[in-house]
Amino acid sequence: MLMNNFEFYSPTDFVFGKNTEEQTGLLVKRFGGKRLLVVYGQGHAVKSGLMDRVEKALKEAELYYVLLGGIQPNPTDEEVYKGIDLGRQHNVDMILAVGGGSAIDAAKAMAAGIPDNGDFWDFYEGTRTVESALPVGVVLTIPAAGSEGSGNSVITQVASNKKISLRTPRALRPKFSILNPELTYSLPPYQTSAGAVDMMAHIMERYFTNTEHTELTDRLSESILKTIIEVTPQVLDRPEDYDARATLMWCGTLAHTGLCGTGNVEDWSSHALEHELSAFYGVTHGAGLAVIFPAWLTFMVEHNPKKVIKWAHCVWDVNPSGNDKEDALEGISRFKKFLHRIGMPTTIKELGIDNYDIDMLNEHLHVIKGEKVGNYVPLDHKMSKEIYEIAQHE
Amino acid sequence: MLMNNFEFYSPTDFVFGKNTEEQTGLLVKRFGGKRLLVVYGQGHAVKSGLMDRVEKALKEAELYYVLLGGIQPNPTDEEVYKGIDLGRQHNVDMILAVGGGSAIDAAKAMAAGIPDNGDFWDFYEGTRTVESALPVGVVLTIPAAGSEGSGNSVITQVASNKKISLRTPRALRPKFSILNPELTYSLPPYQTSAGAVDMMAHIMERYFTNTEHTELTDRLSESILKTIIEVTPQVLDRPEDYDARATLMWCGTLAHTGLCGTGNVEDWSSHALEHELSAFYGVTHGAGLAVIFPAWLTFMVEHNPKKVIKWAHCVWDVNPSGNDKEDALEGISRFKKFLHRIGMPTTIKELGIDNYDIDMLNEHLHVIKGEKVGNYVPLDHKMSKEIYEIAQHE
Repeated sequence: MLMNNFEFYSPTDFVFGKNTEEQTGLLVKRFGGKRLLVVYGQGHAVKSGLMDRVEKALKEAELYYVLLGGIQPNPTDEEVYKGIDLGRQHNVDMILAVGGGSAIDAAKAMAAGIPDNGDFWDFYEGTRTVESALPVGVVLTIPAAGSEGSGNSVITQVASNKKISLRTPRALRPKFSILNPELTYSLPPYQTSAGAVDMMAHIMERYFTNTEHTELTDRLSESILKTIIEVTPQVLDRPEDYDARATLMWCGTLAHTGLCGTGNVEDWSSHALEHELSAFYGVTHGAGLAVIFPAWLTFMVEHNPKKVIKWAHCVWDVNPSGNDKEDALEGISRFKKFLHRIGMPTTIKELGIDNYDIDMLNEHLHVIKGEKVGNYVPLDHKMSKEIYEIAQHE
Repeated sequence: MLMNNFEFYSPTDFVFGKNTEEQTGLLVKRFGGKRLLVVYGQGHAVKSGLMDRVEKALKEAELYYVLLGGIQPNPTDEEVYKGIDLGRQHNVDMILAVGGGSAIDAAKAMAAGIPDNGDFWDFYEGTRTVESALPVGVVLTIPAAGSEGSGNSVITQVASNKKISLRTPRALRPKFSILNPELTYSLPPYQTSAGAVDMMAHIMERYFTNTEHTELTDRLSESILKTIIEVTPQVLDRPEDYDARATLMWCGTLAHTGLCGTGNVEDWSSHALEHELSAFYGVTHGAGLAVIFPAWLTFMVEHNPKKVIKWAHCVWDVNPSGNDKEDALEGISRFKKFLHRIGMPTTIKELGIDNYDIDMLNEHLHVIKGEKVGNYVPLDHKMSKEIYEIAQHE
């Protein structure tokens, strides 16, 4: 299979470094914002003093804004409807997200919904396409989801418990993202590590492809993976190590701009399997991926080992033993060892799920995703069930 | 030294793959163009039938356009003035460049000059800053300069023989760039190889830095360098190998979007030294870099070897011998062997310059660049002269 035609469009203005949140007002103005809806999370942004500094920057730039705090992890359609109403009441022309993936994804949904006449949830169900949206700006506090540089947004519909990822090629890409690594110093270890796993998964969902002649994209992906593996333990050992925090933060953004998938047919089945865990058991997305991805890889050693072998050699520095499958399994073993080193679970039990219901999860997965999930090996009901089972036992 | 604050802004919409030039009209419209100045080179774009296909796409989109062909390599201020006049006569609102770095750089200069009231050359002299410019679109035919994804433009002033590089953070970045690797099948071997060297130089000007903790940026840079080293011989052996051409083309773009310099103090002295060769002897930029860069590296082994050693180990796979300087020299030796393998010169003599006048070049270099050139080791008169001398003898 030849390298595929692709479009790479990552127009976000990334402003990276110390004290960069002071430029919030300037950046809002650069991209034409005058009246803002400021969307943020559950208290940390306030307690840390960040919201004060952001509000100061907005006031200095003489911008009008209205605040909407308290966005939950795994943000819901109910929160989005609330934001749409508030934004319309105040006639806002830009959304500013201050937080991590949840605040940003909620902000994107509001940005799509405010100028739209119908139900924003249609965009997530795929029955309508986002043609235009309000511009979104970001002050990032959690390096993980990569939403600060992607056109994607994940929202959970409360009534149906559907957690759906909307992917837009352009409409929802943030205009600017402010990335100050110092804002991540206070991130708890568990969240730091879950974020690192989420980044790794964003790369690996693209890396595992049957497309051939992907040397460049593979090398870029391996580079970012190796760097995450190197700096995450440093960040855990020294939470205020600026360079390590900065490196991890920039890894998280580059993992998800699309750079790591150029020319590839991407997979994304591990994310789909994990979204069911998050939706039904409320687990942290990155921790869920730490359980699902090794199980997916183990399954692939039997069903399509080629890229798992390369990943073992090039990311985990497994010396080729002559037995490719053994090498692949050694790579998975090193991956799991790394996950434990950074305090992540690798089994359903370690994830803390007691009432694990594989049939229910698997059924719901295929209701949302259809008969086949993913592309590296398109997973039918039996296959996805097997991966859920491996996740339980290993 | 800590990782520096940086801004990474690469908003260009890259549309990559077979037949993508058919989308020219669509992309012009997406970015608001209605009346175009189409700037192209010296015949190849016409002879190959590309201009016919581009014109067809523009006509189908019912766009008005005026043609300006014949842009020379190392484009001059005189050509730019001509384009500014023509663009104003036809009241154009976008410039479309069809070609390589020369057509694109000329198009950017025109884009800055047309809406401006003063002399566009002021921007290149640095006495005024480009605040706004017409949008620029690109159909790329030569992977080399990276101008399709950069905010830079290099123009030579005929009267003074000054070849100056203008760098804008945002004003001159193309809105879209169409990259069809098939358009590069007919590129002659010498131009293909000179392009590959130009790409490598764009990465190395950023890689050689005293900034520390640049693991991620280093790895990304090493990835692209290794890929260029791998695919350039393939492209020379099999000019119509789609995957190899595609990989080399995407390398050329990523080499110069700014990605490879994030967080680094960059150098750029080899480019400055080479620009003098191009300006006075009319040599192909990439071929000139093939002579200057090894000389610059050889000089650095004595004056600041640290990053040259890492480059030897990580890009050229030199096994650490225990003697760092020997390793660095071995890296340079492999670099030169590679350059010869792809048909590039590595000395002034091989470059075909008979009347090499070091004192004149060196004098002119510092007139343009000031007392010190570059950052990895800021080069004074004596140092830059020494590099010009090494280039002559080795």
